[in-house]
Amino acid sequence: MAGGAQPAKVRALSSRRHPHPFGTRLLRQVLYIVGILLLVLAGAMLLPAAADGAVGHPEWQAFAFSAGVTAFAGGALLFANRTSAFALDRKQGFLLTALSWVLLCAFAALPLTLSEYRLPWADAYFEAMSGLTTTGSTVLIHLDSATPGVLLWRGLLQFLGGIGIVVMAIALLPFLSVGGMQLFKTESSDISEKFMPQIKQVASGIFIVYVMLNLACALAYWAAGMTGFEAVLHAMSSISTGGFSTSDNSIGNFKNPAIEWLGALFMFLGALPFILYLRTAMGHRVALFRDPQARMLALLVILASLAIAAWLVDTRAMPMGDALRLAVFSVVSIVTTTGFISADYMEWGAFPIAAFFFLTFVGGCTGSTAGGIKIFRFEVLWIAIRVHGWRLIAPLSVRPAFYGERKLSNELFASVLLFMGAYVGTVAVTALLLAGLGLDLVTALSGAATAVGNVGPGLGSIIGPAGTFTTLPPEAKWVLSFAMLLGRLELFTVLVLFSRAFWRT
Amino acid sequence: MAGGAQPAKVRALSSRRHPHPFGTRLLRQVLYIVGILLLVLAGAMLLPAAADGAVGHPEWQAFAFSAGVTAFAGGALLFANRTSAFALDRKQGFLLTALSWVLLCAFAALPLTLSEYRLPWADAYFEAMSGLTTTGSTVLIHLDSATPGVLLWRGLLQFLGGIGIVVMAIALLPFLSVGGMQLFKTESSDISEKFMPQIKQVASGIFIVYVMLNLACALAYWAAGMTGFEAVLHAMSSISTGGFSTSDNSIGNFKNPAIEWLGALFMFLGALPFILYLRTAMGHRVALFRDPQARMLALLVILASLAIAAWLVDTRAMPMGDALRLAVFSVVSIVTTTGFISADYMEWGAFPIAAFFFLTFVGGCTGSTAGGIKIFRFEVLWIAIRVHGWRLIAPLSVRPAFYGERKLSNELFASVLLFMGAYVGTVAVTALLLAGLGLDLVTALSGAATAVGNVGPGLGSIIGPAGTFTTLPPEAKWVLSFAMLLGRLELFTVLVLFSRAFWRT
Repeated sequence: MAGGAQPAKVRALSSRRHPHPFGTRLLRQVLYIVGILLLVLAGAMLLPAAADGAVGHPEWQAFAFSAGVTAFAGGALLFANRTSAFALDRKQGFLLTALSWVLLCAFAALPLTLSEYRLPWADAYFEAMSGLTTTGSTVLIHLDSATPGVLLWRGLLQFLGGIGIVVMAIALLPFLSVGGMQLFKTESSDISEKFMPQIKQVASGIFIVYVMLNLACALAYWAAGMTGFEAVLHAMSSISTGGFSTSDNSIGNFKNPAIEWLGALFMFLGALPFILYLRTAMGHRVALFRDPQARMLALLVILASLAIAAWLVDTRAMPMGDALRLAVFSVVSIVTTTGFISADYMEWGAFPIAAFFFLTFVGGCTGSTAGGIKIFRFEVLWIAIRVHGWRLIAPLSVRPAFYGERKLSNELFASVLLFMGAYVGTVAVTALLLAGLGLDLVTALSGAATAVGNVGPGLGSIIGPAGTFTTLPPEAKWVLSFAMLLGRLELFTVLVLFSRAFWRT
Repeated sequence: MAGGAQPAKVRALSSRRHPHPFGTRLLRQVLYIVGILLLVLAGAMLLPAAADGAVGHPEWQAFAFSAGVTAFAGGALLFANRTSAFALDRKQGFLLTALSWVLLCAFAALPLTLSEYRLPWADAYFEAMSGLTTTGSTVLIHLDSATPGVLLWRGLLQFLGGIGIVVMAIALLPFLSVGGMQLFKTESSDISEKFMPQIKQVASGIFIVYVMLNLACALAYWAAGMTGFEAVLHAMSSISTGGFSTSDNSIGNFKNPAIEWLGALFMFLGALPFILYLRTAMGHRVALFRDPQARMLALLVILASLAIAAWLVDTRAMPMGDALRLAVFSVVSIVTTTGFISADYMEWGAFPIAAFFFLTFVGGCTGSTAGGIKIFRFEVLWIAIRVHGWRLIAPLSVRPAFYGERKLSNELFASVLLFMGAYVGTVAVTALLLAGLGLDLVTALSGAATAVGNVGPGLGSIIGPAGTFTTLPPEAKWVLSFAMLLGRLELFTVLVLFSRAFWRT
């Protein structure tokens, strides 16, 4: 009590700085789960180790060593933060999501830096982020002569990232109300403030659906002419709407129309809401056909494909059949944010290039493996425009707006539109940073859009369908890695971590 | 009553088709005002007629003839729809705004089709729309040898368009609640459901401010070295943030640093809220410095100019003084949506080009002559992002959001964000149409953005700072004309006319 004039102020200050120290219990539960995820990742690394070992390639050591390091780190986190009771709150949800994606990518990059590619850290982290966010942009060239281990690892990253994002979008994001995702709250998430029980309940059903789709896709590819290995890898990057391939020429390498049509089909299936597969399996046969998102996605694919096919027939004198196949494949590949390439559409002329630029923003359905702004937000935007129009004409009339069976409030409109604003803003800032690093306008714009949308290819000669991200400066790879993370986690899940309010209260 | 089974149904159908025939009284009042505006336009045409007559150029006949036709049309509308009582309602407000702009452009194009340029209709309408919307894109080349009449006419169009848009933005749009403009409702517009009294009250004050600014600008340009004629014309396209010039090389033609700095100053003054000048004149000395829009615009100009100047010094080894002058002029020219050119910034490299692309969207302050999305909407977006972030972290906390002294509601957030969504959507659709007409991605994207934003120049070799819109196909000129109209009238003022609800109730 010496110097008694100030204690009240001092106490107030210090309590403002550390009201509830975020660390300890809250952080421990998050790190515990990250530990589990790292162990899963370490287990997955054993598969490429085995694949390289089987063909007698010394590369297996890179994977085995990485698996050891990752398992050690995961085990240490698990052990140091072991806890019995589990109930994550909303802040932990944000922290867990961002932290797990960032850390998993770091460990997933490890074998790539150690492999024969000897990738620099910027490249390895970019490739791992591109894999786990199911983006599919690559810095690797000469894929056709890569070891099976490296190819399998890239496929596994997309497989794991795909199921991760679906579970997150169904069980976590609606609970966190990110970017209008509260529209997809189920009854259970309304009742409970804690989301763990729901994750467990939904995740197993979704996982089964996901594995079945992957199996069906692999079988179909194999039947159409791929080798077993190719079929499995391309299935993993089709259903996850990732886009990694075993060839520098992507799907175009097979020169096989059947494979292209099957690819379009399975990419499309990967971009539909996975919960609908569960409902369909439970007996709601029409769930898929009634869903407003699924219907709009189908309509968009049909219209865009027809427009581009007509352009190809008209300006490139292409036979109708080829034009339709090429158009459908490319449109589905971009809209579903997969990014497989069957032909270099930079050579198709002005309209398709512009169309692909804008399709890069659209994305698939929410609750799928697809990225982008997502179909439902465009539907809500359209409804909001109409409602605004009515109000302009007759301000006093009350006309409730619905999406499917859910009534839309001004708060939901604001939430969805805000996400779109933040999305375009994120693309703009990313593009400005890339341009500041010397990339031309088309490369910077399309690179930013393809990264935030988790699509894969950009436009232009460098990162376009015939190029790769290899030659970009390392700083650009870090910028793009962060953009992929932001896009994949629906922006706000990451952005809130940068607000003082998050750490203060 | 023969065939008495159906009359009820027939009556219902016909009453749905013509519940309140929109025509007659409602349309008459609108056409009456359009008639007045056409008479003003006809009067303005006498000035270029006099200018060409004074130098003995036969071109004066084109203007005199057009003045006659326009005066006849205006007089006919006035006479046919004469009415005593005046009180426009909200629907008439929309119709008047769109109709007057479309019709005035048609008559304003008349002398250009009849002049020595013999412009095709698409070109003449484009030029007139570009003038009246204060866009400043041009299809004319060899301006340096054009007759004084044609140059004066282009300047007058921007002068008239500039004052028209300020009055509209201050007196009409807040009343119509377009795109969040209700934020700028004054007390009087809250009380009254009719806007005519307010227009008259504000318009005279604004008009005086506008003329004074034009005079000051013309005097400054003249003192800095322009001829009197050049000074007046460039003043008319500076304060209106239009951008038409008397030379193909725009402001760059004068090779005069003083003129460039003055240009930057007066373009900036044209992009500030005009109501603030009135308030300042009434004694509120700090009104301009306290306004959140004005401050943010100044901040943006400073930051963007410094970044681009630093880039020029760093990558082009330009002297700091030149770099700063060029950067400030170009940034101000684009942000204020004027579109004067002092140097071909397509040669400045990747970062400035990307920066100018995004600055094309920003625009000046609302209630000024500037176009674009407008500064206040970005400020509201930023506030919305922060509010959304707080709610994500602590959903139950209540934290009211303010813009200046006005509290922001979810409805206002939705309204503002919706405008931004509709704006980006309009640019996207426009760009797709342009690409469908064969324009490359950069031309299509920047052309759409520059038209909707009423800026002027695009990017690339065709419509960039060193090019013109002359070589575009006529269809592209019509698309761009419509895009300029949409952007100038804040989108929804035009879009509501395409809704069935507008014509039905």
